[in-house]
Amino acid sequence: MGPGLTIDELAIGQRASFTKAFTESDVYSFAGITGDMNPLHVDAVYAAGTRFRRRIVHGMLVASLISTVQATQLPGPGNLYVRQRLEFRAPVFFGDTVTASVEVTAVDAERNRVWLRTDCHNQDRVLVVTGESELSPRKAGR
Amino acid sequence: MGPGLTIDELAIGQRASFTKAFTESDVYSFAGITGDMNPLHVDAVYAAGTRFRRRIVHGMLVASLISTVQATQLPGPGNLYVRQRLEFRAPVFFGDTVTASVEVTAVDAERNRVWLRTDCHNQDRVLVVTGESELSPRKAGR
Amino acid sequence: MGPGLTIDELAIGQRASFTKAFTESDVYSFAGITGDMNPLHVDAVYAAGTRFRRRIVHGMLVASLISTVQATQLPGPGNLYVRQRLEFRAPVFFGDTVTASVEVTAVDAERNRVWLRTDCHNQDRVLVVTGESELSPRKAGR
Amino acid sequence: MGPGLTIDELAIGQRASFTKAFTESDVYSFAGITGDMNPLHVDAVYAAGTRFRRRIVHGMLVASLISTVQATQLPGPGNLYVRQRLEFRAPVFFGDTVTASVEVTAVDAERNRVWLRTDCHNQDRVLVVTGESELSPRKAGR
Repeated sequence: MGPGLTIDELAIGQRASFTKAFTESDVYSFAGITGDMNPLHVDAVYAAGTRFRRRIVHGMLVASLISTVQATQLPGPGNLYVRQRLEFRAPVFFGDTVTASVEVTAVDAERNRVWLRTDCHNQDRVLVVTGESELSPRKAGR
Repeated sequence: MGPGLTIDELAIGQRASFTKAFTESDVYSFAGITGDMNPLHVDAVYAAGTRFRRRIVHGMLVASLISTVQATQLPGPGNLYVRQRLEFRAPVFFGDTVTASVEVTAVDAERNRVWLRTDCHNQDRVLVVTGESELSPRKAGR
Repeated sequence: MGPGLTIDELAIGQRASFTKAFTESDVYSFAGITGDMNPLHVDAVYAAGTRFRRRIVHGMLVASLISTVQATQLPGPGNLYVRQRLEFRAPVFFGDTVTASVEVTAVDAERNRVWLRTDCHNQDRVLVVTGESELSPRKAGR
Repeated sequence: MGPGLTIDELAIGQRASFTKAFTESDVYSFAGITGDMNPLHVDAVYAAGTRFRRRIVHGMLVASLISTVQATQLPGPGNLYVRQRLEFRAPVFFGDTVTASVEVTAVDAERNRVWLRTDCHNQDRVLVVTGESELSPRKAGR
């Protein structure tokens, strides 16, 4: 992975994305390292009795794909994560393939800040998570 | 785990928290299931050259403890996660013990919505993540 | 997670439970950290030739859900685990949802001890593990 | 791993053991797959304030080494785990090396049952877990 983009290399409209299918094993690992044993994620009988009918992926696990795109592609390594706003719109089920997409919406060179629209869609193009992030890109020479 | 609180059982000022020490193993598992291989988290040599001097825990992993408290304690099972706003204030290092605390700040019984202040502190009481969440608590009889 | 119950807060008949669906990934992780590579758990060809017809979950992994309920709910954090008696009654298969239930059966305030009936059932209400535990609850002020 | 011993191959006094050093990663994995987020295991600040002064290994994880010896060595594959009695005598800390030892104490050929004394010691020969198990060994020809 090369060094990330600096503020001068960033422009409104730039995009990047990352896609991953979530497995039962991913969800169980995430439950394990966070302690989030919400029965909606780990209790198949409970989940069958909810509106979702089956276990779903943790919203914060889905949203973490946004961090993946930002850290590894746009703006890439060296940026600092300042803020993230998230709206959880639809459930993600075990086996669903989620694409996190980010797009630059504003750049403030003076304050070294960039804003991105951050969306996650499933394989059927349903918007499952949406929001906005604010980052401080890598400074030149660092 | 019993059923979560309903809107009538929620009141401004209610609090809950969950604490966990983050390990290298946690960070590597999180990197693996999200694909966030930011060198700041997994490249010790790179991290040594940054202002942080060593590898740090992913901000979204730290913030996920907020989801843990909400899902398992306040308001507990059956709630729907609607929105989360996050500000990343300070780094969390491998071995740090983080406490995620949530406190009810507003309740709207008509729309079945509750808002919580969501803070994460490290073992030295440094605020590492702050923000606000909006949830739809479990409805009575469900 | 708040502090656990003290002996004065415990009474015969109190109950708590925790439910989790066990996955292949859980069983393989447990085999890895304990070294229990019994072919009945990790060798699908061997397991197909047994009376069970397929791989089963380790009995000690199933029984560990009892510890989860006791440590996190009843009596909760701060208790000391003194004794556990276990009877393994029926197999648990990959994908089964197990509920561990504990119920206070005796309290000895003078010696600060509590006894619980400890049962695990699968999703079809089959008793898979049963037994009894003895704990020393958190002392007031600690 | 070869087939396990049958009742005719078992005699009072036979012994076997298995040794493993427990790591922080083992404990965190166990917490994750069981949901046992007792702060004594995952909250370093909380643990520092207890009589133990630091995080300890889950008792059921330590005791699971008994299952490992029985399943893989004595009596080995093909046995059925019937009963286990456990006493938790002393804490096991991260980094401790535990040896689980089993010794045949009784054999009932007619009912195809064997009993074993089951002990776990740490690297300083401190008895950390003790108890007794009852197993039904593999039947000849199976």
